[in-house]
Amino acid sequence: MTATAQDLVRLDDIRDAAARISGLVVRTPLLPCPWADELWLKPESLQPIGAFKLRGATNALHRLDLDQRRAGVVTHSSGNHGQALAYAGRALGVPVAVVMPDVSTPLKIEATRGYGAEVILVPQAERETVAKQLVAERGMTLIPPYDHPDIIAGQGTVGLEIFEDLSNVDVVVVPVGGGGLSSGVATAVKALAPHVAVIGVEPAVAADAAESLAAGVVRIWPEQRMLSTVADGLRTPLSELTLAHLSAHLDAIVTVAEDEILDAVKVLARRGRLIAEPSGAAATAAVLHHRDELPAGRTVAVVSGGNIDPRLAATLFTT
Amino acid sequence: MTATAQDLVRLDDIRDAAARISGLVVRTPLLPCPWADELWLKPESLQPIGAFKLRGATNALHRLDLDQRRAGVVTHSSGNHGQALAYAGRALGVPVAVVMPDVSTPLKIEATRGYGAEVILVPQAERETVAKQLVAERGMTLIPPYDHPDIIAGQGTVGLEIFEDLSNVDVVVVPVGGGGLSSGVATAVKALAPHVAVIGVEPAVAADAAESLAAGVVRIWPEQRMLSTVADGLRTPLSELTLAHLSAHLDAIVTVAEDEILDAVKVLARRGRLIAEPSGAAATAAVLHHRDELPAGRTVAVVSGGNIDPRLAATLFTT
Repeated sequence: MTATAQDLVRLDDIRDAAARISGLVVRTPLLPCPWADELWLKPESLQPIGAFKLRGATNALHRLDLDQRRAGVVTHSSGNHGQALAYAGRALGVPVAVVMPDVSTPLKIEATRGYGAEVILVPQAERETVAKQLVAERGMTLIPPYDHPDIIAGQGTVGLEIFEDLSNVDVVVVPVGGGGLSSGVATAVKALAPHVAVIGVEPAVAADAAESLAAGVVRIWPEQRMLSTVADGLRTPLSELTLAHLSAHLDAIVTVAEDEILDAVKVLARRGRLIAEPSGAAATAAVLHHRDELPAGRTVAVVSGGNIDPRLAATLFTT
Repeated sequence: MTATAQDLVRLDDIRDAAARISGLVVRTPLLPCPWADELWLKPESLQPIGAFKLRGATNALHRLDLDQRRAGVVTHSSGNHGQALAYAGRALGVPVAVVMPDVSTPLKIEATRGYGAEVILVPQAERETVAKQLVAERGMTLIPPYDHPDIIAGQGTVGLEIFEDLSNVDVVVVPVGGGGLSSGVATAVKALAPHVAVIGVEPAVAADAAESLAAGVVRIWPEQRMLSTVADGLRTPLSELTLAHLSAHLDAIVTVAEDEILDAVKVLARRGRLIAEPSGAAATAAVLHHRDELPAGRTVAVVSGGNIDPRLAATLFTT
């Protein structure tokens, strides 16, 4: 099924999401950067779970009716989305089950459990099946990490806030993984100010979204190939729904090299005083290393998350 | 000269300061901490110069008349206050001279120059004399780092914002160096809600403010003794003016050990995704290690700054 124009999330959906999630997510500021020309950061790494994902998860849970809330929700995303759903579920009194591969690190399992979710460990290949079983057996609602209008609308609140704080912004730079954040932000920004450029950023070694946009269909790269980027949050393919949003609203995609991503993680720590994960630093990497490919003017880079591997973080200040 | 009640900064002064500095300083959020019970952080480390000092400096420059603005300002504080004044001066078109000891690190000199200030290097002992010469010869206005009502009122805007974001706060914990931040925050919070506890934090090895408060007069510890704390921003003595504010409004001072401060720097990086300097982590250290000495309830710790020595920062993730 291909998404059509009437299926796309609209500005009003994002405004409604903003009203719903207010008080449950952090209203992050825009941070001016004296160390880069006309650059502001939107530090979503400061959300309590360390990533923008809390916005979409909170909006999606709010949209459930009372019976659905009672039965609870399930996801088979074991990263930031799983933790976001766990955190939002606890805040709203909705049971949350996260189906995780049994090879997950103890750190990730503990973090998800720590937010109050039920963690179900299964072999990697059985994740989707087990999630569907929980839907059938317990009447739970499946909340996907990005392929859902309520998720996209929630992430789009990042775009609303950018515009509230810097109404004369010229360029918004946002990382593209599954496309939930970029779809929402592009939708909000283009509806508010069509002349503002919205630029997506992908690792060059995982540029499936750029290829999908050029082809007009979702292109899925082999999992093994996607593993070659350090930006683990940007290894996921687009969905039909996010591709439709990006086709309608995104101006371009810029790709960044792996060493540029790691450099941006360092600069964000040393100059921006922010701990960012590689996926979270990708937009900043594009500004630092590919400014010539971006439109000129007042630029906002979204720092989408800060859940960095401690072993990688240890190298931030030592090299 | 002892400060009397009518000399003290009042809530209206702080509200006026908030209106003046709006748009020139970052409106920092309160960050809830899932990793600690009932704790929120106020991350002033995210100000563009990396510390709350920008608030007081911006307010002080705004209060100058046109002739004073043209002649410019001078300070002999070479740390965060000097950089704050340089940054605010550039934003407001006011020339800034910073008199620094000739033993200052190149990093600090370059940062201050980078914000557009004139840096004047002199032997450590001549700093005050040279600053006074600039006042006499160039008609510059001396802007001290904390011993001034406009500075205290500017720093007090931190307290206003805490209350705006968490109106049912029970405890505010704030580091005490020269006392500008703690005086302003205590003044604001106590005027808005007298039942909220405002607790100061000092390194145990540099507890001159606690001693001064107990004695009712400013006690100045030998410089050599103050050097024993890693929290370099908390080595300065109170002034008559800040002692008067703290005597009137502060509930208590809690002291923290050096290893507790360094532990808090680590926790803020690993769990809070914030780069804090030791002085900036002192309030968090009190919450993490001395909660039994604090009143119970919803607690805000001010993370006052993030300008950490890169060599120290390198140890954050490796030990």
